Parts: sequence; C-alpha cells; structure tokens
Amino acid sequence: MSEDFQKVTESAVTEPQQANPYGPNPADYLSNVKNFQLIDSTLREGEQFANAFFSTEKKIEIAKALDDFGVDYIELTSPVASEQSRSDCEAICKLGLKAKILTHIRCHMDDARVAVETGVDGVDVVIGTSKFLRQYSHGKDMNYIAKSAVEVIEFVKSKGIEIRFSSEDSFRSDLVDLLNIYKTVDQIGVNRVGIADTVGCANPRQVYELIRTLKSVVSCDIECHFHNDTGCAIANAYTALEGGARLIDTCVLGIGERNGIVPLGGLMARMIVAAPEYVKSKYKLHKLRDLENLVAEAVEVNIPFNNPITGFCAFTHKAGIHAKAILANPSTYEILDPHDFGMKRYIHFANRLTGWNAIKSRVDQLNLNLADDQIKEVTNKIKKLGDVRPLNIDDVDSIIKDFHAEVSTPRLAAIKRDHADLDNDDLNPKKTKQ
Amino acid sequence: MSEDFQKVTESAVTEPQQANPYGPNPADYLSNVKNFQLIDSTLREGEQFANAFFSTEKKIEIAKALDDFGVDYIELTSPVASEQSRSDCEAICKLGLKAKILTHIRCHMDDARVAVETGVDGVDVVIGTSKFLRQYSHGKDMNYIAKSAVEVIEFVKSKGIEIRFSSEDSFRSDLVDLLNIYKTVDQIGVNRVGIADTVGCANPRQVYELIRTLKSVVSCDIECHFHNDTGCAIANAYTALEGGARLIDTCVLGIGERNGIVPLGGLMARMIVAAPEYVKSKYKLHKLRDLENLVAEAVEVNIPFNNPITGFCAFTHKAGIHAKAILANPSTYEILDPHDFGMKRYIHFANRLTGWNAIKSRVDQLNLNLADDQIKEVTNKIKKLGDVRPLNIDDVDSIIKDFHAEVSTPRLAAIKRDHADLDNDDLNPKKTKQ
Repeated sequence: MSEDFQKVTESAVTEPQQANPYGPNPADYLSNVKNFQLIDSTLREGEQFANAFFSTEKKIEIAKALDDFGVDYIELTSPVASEQSRSDCEAICKLGLKAKILTHIRCHMDDARVAVETGVDGVDVVIGTSKFLRQYSHGKDMNYIAKSAVEVIEFVKSKGIEIRFSSEDSFRSDLVDLLNIYKTVDQIGVNRVGIADTVGCANPRQVYELIRTLKSVVSCDIECHFHNDTGCAIANAYTALEGGARLIDTCVLGIGERNGIVPLGGLMARMIVAAPEYVKSKYKLHKLRDLENLVAEAVEVNIPFNNPITGFCAFTHKAGIHAKAILANPSTYEILDPHDFGMKRYIHFANRLTGWNAIKSRVDQLNLNLADDQIKEVTNKIKKLGDVRPLNIDDVDSIIKDFHAEVSTPRLAAIKRDHADLDNDDLNPKKTKQ
Repeated sequence: MSEDFQKVTESAVTEPQQANPYGPNPADYLSNVKNFQLIDSTLREGEQFANAFFSTEKKIEIAKALDDFGVDYIELTSPVASEQSRSDCEAICKLGLKAKILTHIRCHMDDARVAVETGVDGVDVVIGTSKFLRQYSHGKDMNYIAKSAVEVIEFVKSKGIEIRFSSEDSFRSDLVDLLNIYKTVDQIGVNRVGIADTVGCANPRQVYELIRTLKSVVSCDIECHFHNDTGCAIANAYTALEGGARLIDTCVLGIGERNGIVPLGGLMARMIVAAPEYVKSKYKLHKLRDLENLVAEAVEVNIPFNNPITGFCAFTHKAGIHAKAILANPSTYEILDPHDFGMKRYIHFANRLTGWNAIKSRVDQLNLNLADDQIKEVTNKIKKLGDVRPLNIDDVDSIIKDFHAEVSTPRLAAIKRDHADLDNDDLNPKKTKQ
C-alpha cells in the first residue's frame, strides 16, 4: 500500500490558475452569470403573499428602497386588480426612479388598454400554457393564445412601451407549443420572453436544458420566474443564467403565492460567489438588511432564523475545529464575507463543542496571559460545564478569570473588553414563538 | 401572420406518454433519485447550530422521532467532543432503533479508538483536503491524509463497523487529489465515500459533474453533505442523486453551522415530486410537522414563515386567478398535495386581489344562494373594502350576508359553517417579532 501513497500528488504548486473555481463554468458561452438583471416583484408577486397588505405609502417606501438597492426593474400589481392598485401604479410611475417600472397583466386587451395609460415603462403579459391551466383556468387553446398575444403585443408596442410575453407553468407545458409561441412573439418584436415555474416543480438540469433550447429559438432576452415550493428557486435561477437567461424575478424575502419565489437576498448570496465584482459594483449590498426588515415588518413576519446573509446565525461559527480555522483565515469556512453586507462574523465559543483555539482568542480579548497548556486546561473546564447546561459569555469569562487568578498574578494593565468582530447581541437573540 | 397561428400545434392529444414530466431524467442511468437514503445529522451537525444545546433526554426524544419518521441513519456528535457527548452516544446506541447509528470523528486514531467502543453501527471520518483547510486547519499534506485514512479505516473495519471516508470542503479541493484519495480508500473497502460542500459554495451543474466523475472512480456508495450559505443545498442534493450519489445528509429544519445544511422537510418536498411512490412508502410524511416542532422548540427558533411544506402559507392561494383554478383542480397551482403531509389547503379570499370564483366558493360554504351576477357584484364590494384596509374572514362574511339579505329572502335551511379545507387559524397566525 505504501507505494500508493506516493502517487497522491501534492497539488499546491501545480494547481491550474483559476481565479474563482466556484464561479461561472467557462464552457457556458451563453452564460449571463456576469451580466444579469433583476426584476423585483415584491409589489406584485409579493402582494400575493398571504399576509401582504401594502398601503400606498408603504408601496412607495418599498419602491424607493428597491430603487436605492439597485434593482433594474420594479414590477407592480395589475392596474385592473382594484381601483387602488391602479392609482398606486400611477403614483409610483411619477416618482422618477432609476429602476424601470413594470406592471403585470393577463394576456387580454381589456387589461392592456388600462396598463398603457398608467405611465409604466413596460408591461409584462402572462398566459397559462400548460394543459392544466388551459383546461381549468382560461379554457383556451394554443391558437387562441397566440392570437391574443400578437394583438396585445402589437398594441403595447404601438404605445412605445416595453413588452414581455411569458407563459405560465412553463415546465408542465408542451415543449413544441412553447417554442412555437415564443418564436412567434420574438418575430413580432417583444423585448423579453418569460419562463415561469409557477408551481415550483422544476429542477436545475431541467431548467438548463429548457433555457438553452429556448435560447436557440429566440433572439430577445429571456426572463425567469421560479417558485420555491420544492426549495430549488435560487439554484434554478442561477442555472437559468448559466443557460443564457438574462433576467431573474425576485421578491424581498421571497414573499409571494404559497411559500414564494426567488428571494432577493438569497440570490445575492449565490451571485456574489460567482460574479463578485459585478454584484458588488451594481447593488448596494449593505442596504439588504434594512430592505428585508422593511418588508418583514410590512407583512408581519420574522426574518427566518436560517435566512441567507441576514439570518441571525449566518456568520456564526461554533464547532471547535471550525473556530480554529476561522481565526487563522475566515475563508476556510466562509464563502461569503459578512463585511460585504455590513454584517459581522461571530465565533461561538461558549459551548461544549468549543476548542482551545477559540478560548485562546477569548483569553487574548480579555487581555489575560495564559500559556497554551493552561488554555487547554481551562477549555476542559468550560467543556465540562457546557455538558451540564447552556453557557453564555459571562459564564466562560468567569471560568477564565477564576482560572487566571489561580495560576498567575494579575497583570497591571487595565482589562480591556475588546469585542472586535464579536457582538453579544448576536449570541442571545430575543426569540419568541410565532 | 394568421397563417402562422395554424402552425401552432394543439398538443393535448399527441403528447408523449410520460407519467411524471418533472421526475428523474430518463437519460440519467446512474440516478439514485428513486433509490436514495437519508443520514440525519440533527444530533451532530445540528448540535453545531448556534442555539443548540440538547440534553440527554432531548437527544433521545429526537433520535426516536427521527427513527419513527424513517430516516436510514442517525449521525451523532463525536464521543471525544465532551464526556457527555460520549455517554449520550452510548445511550442512543442502546435504544435499539431501526435506524443505524453513526458517529462523526476526525481522521485520527485517538478519535477512532473511542468511537468503536460506543456501540455505533458506523463511523464517519472526515478530513479537510482543500488548500485552505490544509494550511489553516490541520496543516497536513495529501500523503499524510492518505496514511491516516488507511490506518483509521482498517482499524474500524477490523471491529466489524461500517466506515465512511469524507473529504471536507470538497469543492475547493484539487480534483486529482480528491480522486486519488477516494480511489485509495475505495480499494481498501470503505462502505461510503463522502463529498462535502462545507462552505456552501457549490452549484448544481458543478455538483453533477463531480459526482458523475467520482462515480466512475469508486465502486462504493457516495454520500453528500451540502451547506446552504448560497441557498442551493436542496437543489445540489437532488442533482447529486441524479449524478449517482446515494445518500444525503439532512438536519431537521436544516440547522447546523452558520445557516445550516439540507433541511429534511425541504428535501422531502423536492423528492416527493420526483419519486412519489418511493418517498410516500418509506417516510412517515405526516409526522414531519411534529418533528420540526420538536426541534424548533429545543433550539428556540420559529419555523420560518416560508418553510417548505410546513410554513404557515405553503398551501395558501391568494390571487383571484389562482383561486379560481385551484377550486377547479388543485394540481393547476400545486405540485405538492398538502394531504400527503397531514396539512390543509387554504384559499385566501379576504383581500383586494380576490376573484369571484373564490367568493362563490365562500358563498356556497355559507350555504347561501346567489346568482353569478350577484356574486360578481358582492366581489366588487369586497375588493373595494380590501383597497382600504386588510380584511379578515368575518369582514367578508358580513359583506356577503348583508348583500344576501338585501337581494333575497333567507333560505330556511340552517346556516352551516362548513370549513372544509379551510382553517381560520391559518389566516391569522400569531406573529411576534424575533
């Protein structure tokens, strides 16, 4: 066996020069991973979230925050949904935001005539193409769908307004039907076609195949809308960009029908890993937490404990072996840098899984002086108490200070509590039951 | 243009016979989507969650609940982490559960000697292979790693105990290094090799390529461990199974280091769509909510509002167009059947996005009698009030009843409040701020 060991190469030197090994796949010449756009739909899809009721003032506040964050488009509820929906749409169009304003309507002239009068920059039309929706929703066949689409598209274009045509429930629609209608609407000049996983059934490789095929049929941009019922929305969005899609629909915290769609924050986590320069230059990532808090408060939900980036423990390291390496170099156990988002890293050392490297770091912070063997000894004391009950920082500090007093003469320097990169609030978040 | 319309085929008749179009890809002859196993790590990875402190009693309660749910393996914290960790491991081994019990140790004889004495069915060994971990964690080269691995594996096998060898941070490790060491350990007879996305950086197509390549190098089973920092853990797990992996590590609610790993419930949502018979026959899905509540309470977190399956709104339909179709056939807007999980569907009709089909359904539930035109009229009244403020069911019922009293003589039949498939509690979940 010992000869086999020699065959194990040590690659540190010969490693190929690839700046970002978890970035875009170089084989994807169609990839838009480094050139994507965001259509935020918090004020349309998000209004379909069970708890959502946005007043005019709240809609305007959210629209301004989204614009400030840097989303490319803001999509609003159809002006025919209700009288207030219409006047709110008009009010937001008058704000003069940098983001383009869209509204989302059924593929019907009655809706289109109202939409083009609101002042929007673009209209998103949608119609169900799966056999389920054709049978149980609008009851129309593909010929009827194509005729309506052409009529609506030509009307909206005649008003000088951007137009997107999307199927609904695309992944349960017949592929030939889909390609036929997308080819038709592309030829008459839509700005974008949309693929929608309306029920949240799609998986990444299926998404990649459909987008790549569609990309060979149309010349316009491709927009994608992914629901999250089976937990794949972010991954599907990323894979769609790899296949050549250009625009992704998001909502703040992913709110929408049922358990929602691609969350803006989660997608930022995914994209910053693949295209750090593009993402950091285009979006104000340090505003993410405020934006999420604004929407969470408006719809009366808590930020999920495990939310990407802003969840209370997203940058908390606990096991001793993790803490040791994080203290030496954060990249060992972090693919995201908390500082990119205005967040902080936290080393959780007050527990039975702690290790002596984490405790050594704490001893240093307390400005105490212990040899490594002594630190290992006090770490064992801490782990013993951690076996009996949950610990907090004060428990650990007491044990360390008592131990220090036993083994040495206290130094004369004032004890300075340096909480660099530590935040006690993060350790004991207030938790109440939903 | 009108000739083009004729070319749009109507596919309802000619559709190919594919029972489950969003199921496994028939081209994946290596796929284990219909033949996967679960290693639940709530009592190992989950113990590394910031808030986790499990007493012996709580560990036993969770282990029994996981076993009852049907997971194949239960992974426990290393017996060398602390004295109590060791005695808890021994206690759980003595429970006589159907699930096999594993413990998770560093690739070191000191740990292995303790592990094999605990009574576990298997030992999971792990060592960092990325240049980050080799430099900042253990500081060893690949030859040292291979030697330690062989020593530990042969020792554990000599005791008649299952053994898994996993790299750590596999997606930032050199491919040749990885394949070399996996080939070595496969040849000496490990039961499984493990791939770990320790920092949560992997994306689905990258996962598929690595697993498919590894599958051609080893003959043993492949286990995968995906962190969720960039929101792709569930999708990566699914894609790994497509590529030939067999076992997925999960935690209840996904709890673990940072924002955790593949959540058990979310993976069930993904897998039931792809392999419904396998999943429903193997796992007690109706116990999922109790299992999640048990763990959520133990670690003092709320179930996220948007949790797959058990989030309060996972089966809530709101927009009028959705409600209409759901009432005709739930499959139009649902890929998951709530009844498979002991959950209920809810049509949210008390809001300004409501439609007359949803209101008609409510009128029927109230055992009132209105013509379609009358229902459209009362729907407009409801939407008007919904523009002014958030509505609840009582608001809507009052409007309907007042309207009904105006337009007709009340029927003599007793008004029966039939809440079939509706649950008022779901409408107004108690929400408090975290």
